[in-house]
Amino acid sequence: MSFSFHLQKKCDTTWARVGQLRTPHGDVSTPVFCPVGTQATVKTMSPRGLEEVGVTLVVANTYHLYLRPGADIVAGLGGLHSFMGWQGPILTDSGGFQVFSMGHLREIDDDGVTFRSHIDGSEQRLTPEKSIAVQEQLGADIVVSLDVCPPYPSDREHNRFALDRTHRWAERCLKAQTRKDQMMQGVVQGGTYADLREESARHLVALDFPAYAIGGLSVGEPKALMHDMLDVTIPLLPEDKSRHLLGVGSPEDLFEGVARGIDIFDCALPTRVARNGTFFTREGRLNIRNARYKDDPAPVMEDCSCYTCRNFSRAYLRHLVIGREILGIHLATVHNLHFMLDLMREIRDAVREDRFAGLKDEFLAGYKVADFQAGKRDRQAWLAKLGAHKGVCDE
Amino acid sequence: MSFSFHLQKKCDTTWARVGQLRTPHGDVSTPVFCPVGTQATVKTMSPRGLEEVGVTLVVANTYHLYLRPGADIVAGLGGLHSFMGWQGPILTDSGGFQVFSMGHLREIDDDGVTFRSHIDGSEQRLTPEKSIAVQEQLGADIVVSLDVCPPYPSDREHNRFALDRTHRWAERCLKAQTRKDQMMQGVVQGGTYADLREESARHLVALDFPAYAIGGLSVGEPKALMHDMLDVTIPLLPEDKSRHLLGVGSPEDLFEGVARGIDIFDCALPTRVARNGTFFTREGRLNIRNARYKDDPAPVMEDCSCYTCRNFSRAYLRHLVIGREILGIHLATVHNLHFMLDLMREIRDAVREDRFAGLKDEFLAGYKVADFQAGKRDRQAWLAKLGAHKGVCDE
Repeated sequence: MSFSFHLQKKCDTTWARVGQLRTPHGDVSTPVFCPVGTQATVKTMSPRGLEEVGVTLVVANTYHLYLRPGADIVAGLGGLHSFMGWQGPILTDSGGFQVFSMGHLREIDDDGVTFRSHIDGSEQRLTPEKSIAVQEQLGADIVVSLDVCPPYPSDREHNRFALDRTHRWAERCLKAQTRKDQMMQGVVQGGTYADLREESARHLVALDFPAYAIGGLSVGEPKALMHDMLDVTIPLLPEDKSRHLLGVGSPEDLFEGVARGIDIFDCALPTRVARNGTFFTREGRLNIRNARYKDDPAPVMEDCSCYTCRNFSRAYLRHLVIGREILGIHLATVHNLHFMLDLMREIRDAVREDRFAGLKDEFLAGYKVADFQAGKRDRQAWLAKLGAHKGVCDE
Repeated sequence: MSFSFHLQKKCDTTWARVGQLRTPHGDVSTPVFCPVGTQATVKTMSPRGLEEVGVTLVVANTYHLYLRPGADIVAGLGGLHSFMGWQGPILTDSGGFQVFSMGHLREIDDDGVTFRSHIDGSEQRLTPEKSIAVQEQLGADIVVSLDVCPPYPSDREHNRFALDRTHRWAERCLKAQTRKDQMMQGVVQGGTYADLREESARHLVALDFPAYAIGGLSVGEPKALMHDMLDVTIPLLPEDKSRHLLGVGSPEDLFEGVARGIDIFDCALPTRVARNGTFFTREGRLNIRNARYKDDPAPVMEDCSCYTCRNFSRAYLRHLVIGREILGIHLATVHNLHFMLDLMREIRDAVREDRFAGLKDEFLAGYKVADFQAGKRDRQAWLAKLGAHKGVCDE
């Protein structure tokens, strides 16, 4: 078997757990946060940069790559790993989420979905078989079955209907698979209806997927409702298979998800907010555009070991972001990814050492979900530190 | 003395020469190509990235940094080196070129020039004393005296008048200098009038600047005219002082400039064309957007050792550029800077080994100034090479 999941440790007070995902391109410690590389690139990051911040698993989008450059081209160049120069594990989604988000630009029938390309308006068709065929051409280590994602809110009847279709498509995806080296996740749906979520979990477990994902959450519903849905779903999933919470992953989400037994998170948030000059910190999000940072010699986070915090002041980062310099976006991305991956490492350590619940309380107590403004630190100390670190030559 | 210039070797058949520039932040082998970091960042490049491609001297723009973030802020943070995290040598220009390029948005008098900020429209004033004061606050290793840059074409009378002003301003810049650790370049002007160029060179040499620059060229005049101006100017400059050709530096310009005795080149071209998907090669500029590269597994340049060419295919680079991904711009910038710095290294070696004229002929014979289209190479060989290099795991 070229892939597997091994549970290594369970938390004593929550559903949190630590495990090891084995893939043809290497092992991944879980719980894991995956950055999103929509077009076969995590925005602004080179593969070696991803490695440096601690990325172990990258998500790429089937919808985007199918349209451009096309799965044939990627396959002809040796697959996604060789194409994007990333030799670690890759997960591709099914393409469904993007297509279902298109509203009036797509039409669903029982066999699949017809949609218009956002690039050239051409008519395209996605079916369960097509999604798997494209994902096989792309060649990721982990693939996702095609599901139907109803919008939020949507009524019970709509969800009922969509769920039956999701289940039929899940079966077709399993049947369509020809590559034995790709670990396929079956996607639990059911909207915000607890009984549908339960039914979906049981149905997919009966189909015996090698891994599971939970879809259709974090699409506008209150966080509490998302947590309720996880609470009813996860206990029904087999303990020895990995669970991926699709498209979710703010810093606070990591704690809530891990506490409920999630192993894999993927989210574009850390890279997306970076492009706006927003940096994650233990206290909350810091927007570097704020005028208070214009002459601040301190790094974004005092005790952060990322390249950005080791080398640049808030004042310089603010200057770059205000001046619309690409380096500003890149340095923010480096910091935010490092922050997420470091946090996940801390979470894994805490689970291993039976202190996850304490870490969760501590983090959530200190973290403001809204933006926060960092205070000025001791100016001279920071100037001296920056100077000392960089070996400034004052002649 | 915290700075100096040592001539190490002269070419036997041209005016080409190799030397060593000593600055408070390290030594620079000349002839040298300097990338332009307008806003205290060479676009898309981190300081360690600059080091990796072989950059030894960075140019920053006084005009831009004076307006944003302001020289006070940079000085308060320890100067440009500490601000931008670049501990190697830095050169700042005088700010004159940008201001004089503003056309109707500026007004010159004998004392200085009044202009409107391109950022907020505020009225600003630049004088020789102000330019030096700002450059002293920024703290570069090499600074440039404020000159008057007439547009091309402009008549003799205009140039005569501007030149007298340039000479008076040069004297004022020298008098205004208070920092003894900054090497000041006096700027030779005179438009495209050989006698004015000669007069300017003699005048500035009499003022005994520690270094010289040649301004007002590559502003629209034919290349041959630029070469003529260099031919009359440079023999009049002292051999033991460095010569900087301001704002010039395409690959072909390096050869023509070095052959005429230029030591320092700065130009935004390699970084600017990178943002458009243009890569320098030994055969000319390659525009990666060309459809012929859509499935090309070869690197941009076969024998290039830059990070981009070692790791990515033309097909992937094209995909990134077409998809407007920042990584594409960054990888093109890495390659183009590496190309320029590598070429300069080759030029220095050739001068040292008395084979510069041959290298120049060979390069210019192979290099098309217009875009060129690279042919397809052996597909299988490149796929194998990419795979082998990256250790692709085919399970």
